[in-house]
Amino acid sequence: MTYALRPEECRTDLPLDLKKDETQVVPDVVRQLVQTCASKHCFEHVSPIPIPSREAVVQVILTGRRVLFPGYFTENRIDQVNLEYYLGQEVTSLAQQLGTQVAWAVRHDCYRYEAVECTHCNEQGREKALRFIEALPELRRKLALDVRAAYEGDPASGSLDQIIFSYPGLFAVTVYRMAHVLRHLDVPLLPRIMTEYAHSATGIDIHPGAHIGESFFIDHGTGVVIGETAIIGDRVRLYQGVTLGALSIPRGAVQSLRGAKRHPTIEDDVVIYAGATILGGETVIGARSVIGGNVWLTESVPADTKVVLKTPELVFIGHSAKTEG
Amino acid sequence: MTYALRPEECRTDLPLDLKKDETQVVPDVVRQLVQTCASKHCFEHVSPIPIPSREAVVQVILTGRRVLFPGYFTENRIDQVNLEYYLGQEVTSLAQQLGTQVAWAVRHDCYRYEAVECTHCNEQGREKALRFIEALPELRRKLALDVRAAYEGDPASGSLDQIIFSYPGLFAVTVYRMAHVLRHLDVPLLPRIMTEYAHSATGIDIHPGAHIGESFFIDHGTGVVIGETAIIGDRVRLYQGVTLGALSIPRGAVQSLRGAKRHPTIEDDVVIYAGATILGGETVIGARSVIGGNVWLTESVPADTKVVLKTPELVFIGHSAKTEG
Amino acid sequence: MTYALRPEECRTDLPLDLKKDETQVVPDVVRQLVQTCASKHCFEHVSPIPIPSREAVVQVILTGRRVLFPGYFTENRIDQVNLEYYLGQEVTSLAQQLGTQVAWAVRHDCYRYEAVECTHCNEQGREKALRFIEALPELRRKLALDVRAAYEGDPASGSLDQIIFSYPGLFAVTVYRMAHVLRHLDVPLLPRIMTEYAHSATGIDIHPGAHIGESFFIDHGTGVVIGETAIIGDRVRLYQGVTLGALSIPRGAVQSLRGAKRHPTIEDDVVIYAGATILGGETVIGARSVIGGNVWLTESVPADTKVVLKTPELVFIGHSAKTEG
Repeated sequence: MTYALRPEECRTDLPLDLKKDETQVVPDVVRQLVQTCASKHCFEHVSPIPIPSREAVVQVILTGRRVLFPGYFTENRIDQVNLEYYLGQEVTSLAQQLGTQVAWAVRHDCYRYEAVECTHCNEQGREKALRFIEALPELRRKLALDVRAAYEGDPASGSLDQIIFSYPGLFAVTVYRMAHVLRHLDVPLLPRIMTEYAHSATGIDIHPGAHIGESFFIDHGTGVVIGETAIIGDRVRLYQGVTLGALSIPRGAVQSLRGAKRHPTIEDDVVIYAGATILGGETVIGARSVIGGNVWLTESVPADTKVVLKTPELVFIGHSAKTEG
Repeated sequence: MTYALRPEECRTDLPLDLKKDETQVVPDVVRQLVQTCASKHCFEHVSPIPIPSREAVVQVILTGRRVLFPGYFTENRIDQVNLEYYLGQEVTSLAQQLGTQVAWAVRHDCYRYEAVECTHCNEQGREKALRFIEALPELRRKLALDVRAAYEGDPASGSLDQIIFSYPGLFAVTVYRMAHVLRHLDVPLLPRIMTEYAHSATGIDIHPGAHIGESFFIDHGTGVVIGETAIIGDRVRLYQGVTLGALSIPRGAVQSLRGAKRHPTIEDDVVIYAGATILGGETVIGARSVIGGNVWLTESVPADTKVVLKTPELVFIGHSAKTEG
Repeated sequence: MTYALRPEECRTDLPLDLKKDETQVVPDVVRQLVQTCASKHCFEHVSPIPIPSREAVVQVILTGRRVLFPGYFTENRIDQVNLEYYLGQEVTSLAQQLGTQVAWAVRHDCYRYEAVECTHCNEQGREKALRFIEALPELRRKLALDVRAAYEGDPASGSLDQIIFSYPGLFAVTVYRMAHVLRHLDVPLLPRIMTEYAHSATGIDIHPGAHIGESFFIDHGTGVVIGETAIIGDRVRLYQGVTLGALSIPRGAVQSLRGAKRHPTIEDDVVIYAGATILGGETVIGARSVIGGNVWLTESVPADTKVVLKTPELVFIGHSAKTEG
């Protein structure tokens, strides 16, 4: 491709100076923006107190992952000699990062909603961060089971290391398991920021409130949605596009549904294939059942049952290549 | 896991030096690459003029979001005293960043396609950036309505702040609303770079050309596609995997369809559940209608209608756990 | 919104100091983590040898893209005078980055699994990196055809440049084509890290082992899954949510399926619309066939055939706006 060179007026080094009659645009807009901050039609966080930082929460996730899978996600070489020092540094750093963000999240909710229980924000930050730290060995045990479940569930998995390095399902579950601990500790804001970060990175949307058992595997994963009140047993396997969701919500009924069990229960050893949708808080998929691809379920299924879509009728239309040309 | 230590030849500090007969590989490949740049089988942007930068466009998005939701996405503490200075700095910076990118995008199109109208690239950059700045207060009003629509549409939303911090649907709509303003100003390249950035971050693909009304809410969102010529009314709610798309395109007909209305119209107060697909430029979903999950529609639906899939027949096959073992 | 200012104990500058009885938490947890590293219930990479770095692999992808599409993804201005120097620097840098990562990946597999063939890790890194470099001109030719296929397949594509700048399908295919070359060279770990990075960025999951012909176009793309042993001909077009997958896997049969042909074959000039699922290693979609949206196929389709879902029965329920409240 060639370019027709252009005359002087297209010089690329001209400054983007404002004309005189334009200099008022920015101050006018700024004044409007400041004024609307006082109105109810506006969201801002104008306050002398700090607010949780999404970037800092992402650092908590990444530090947590380095602790849970030592040596995989660091440029540092870790050997038996420095392992304890390495973990010591990372865990201390995690406690500090998380403690600060928890304190800010608690304080933010306290100022914003004038809750009364928050008189000791820093103390809460410190305590909840330590409770989280104490959960790390158990988290690590569970995640090792998740890695093995992925290896056993996917013929394309070349090695256990490949799963840890690159499987989006494992990353989403790692973040969910950390966020679920924080949710259990009643930490505001941060759990959802964490799982939405994983959602953004993987297309897998697991609400931190869901309960998920051991040896859990999500293959491919894009489009998976697991709702706030879903309960999932052990050794469950899901594929891309599976929704464990709520039944449709009548207009105006949203507020009354907050906190109610709205999402299904999946018992042990169930497999749910791609694109299946299972809805409703009273829907239970019995143990060892298999739900076929694209199945749409709003009722319970007994244990040891296989549910498949009755093959939808296809229409085959012969067409010659010539008519397309 | 243990490691069998290996002999000397596995030393990790050996340089990756080329052997003598290999030193010619890189120059040979470079020569081939340079030569193909002159051929038609090649895309390059070899030119002394600058080109829009995806990184800079991402900065425009992030700066814009800091202006539209002051205080949420910054480490700086903003209070009533410094609010005006803070917004002033951010808006000025946004005008400069955007003005440069618009100028480069306009100039790029001008050189590349030898368009005649571009004799004042910098002027266009400055003017269009100022028109964008002037639209910020209105954008902010609309986005506040979108935040409230999310709160009212989702029983799992813990607080309004949580939506602003973490909901992917709100991020995708924020970026779309900014990109749509630029598209309306006939800015080339940048609007699509912006919405594809949001697509990458959220799995929600909204073409900047679509028209979307007020109080719009997308829940979960992964897999949502909203086409270039779709028209969406006020208070519409969509779930994950909804496609508002075009009918299939016969081979060879693509060029004639550029610009034609190819995507559906969704009237006010419609709800469209997960996985529904609505196709075609003449398809109209009437006001207050509800489209059920996985419904596939290529025809219009009158107002106040609920459309659900006739429950597909499921096949239940009892299987004992023993046969699986 | 206003904030009720809080008393002294909510001061934001208090340090997050541990109480005395809490100082033991971190050391206790670290000791537990170190101990579990010796158990089989644990994954770590504690070893004096380096391990491939996901960040470095991402740099390989980005450098590769700058070489394959010169001038699009760089702040540097490239003109006819400096083009050869620019490409020379980038290609040399690519060879070094890639050579290091290949050497580390080979060595990692060698130590970890005690394979015998790896006595020359650095040599393998250098050689495989050079073979990759030699493939660049051919990769570039193929990607130019992919760009044109996108332009011809999408009425919303404003320009060829827009596709290169912003289309997620093109990015996923670019990364796949690079990863496929490395897979062909028997490089461990890296190909999958590369395609999972693209999966994360685009929602498009292409296994590096798949075989994909020329002039390939994926539109929108979120949720697309292309399995390890899929074979795709020339001029094929896919839309969002298409799965080319494996039939369901009986429990316990996973290991025996590694390496077997488990995914379908798509012949030349086939179009597959959104949400279609095609499964099984013996399934062949004949040339020039068209597969409609949401079709579910586990059997072969002859050439020149159009397959559409028999329009599923919809239930239309009139409802007055009044009953909705």
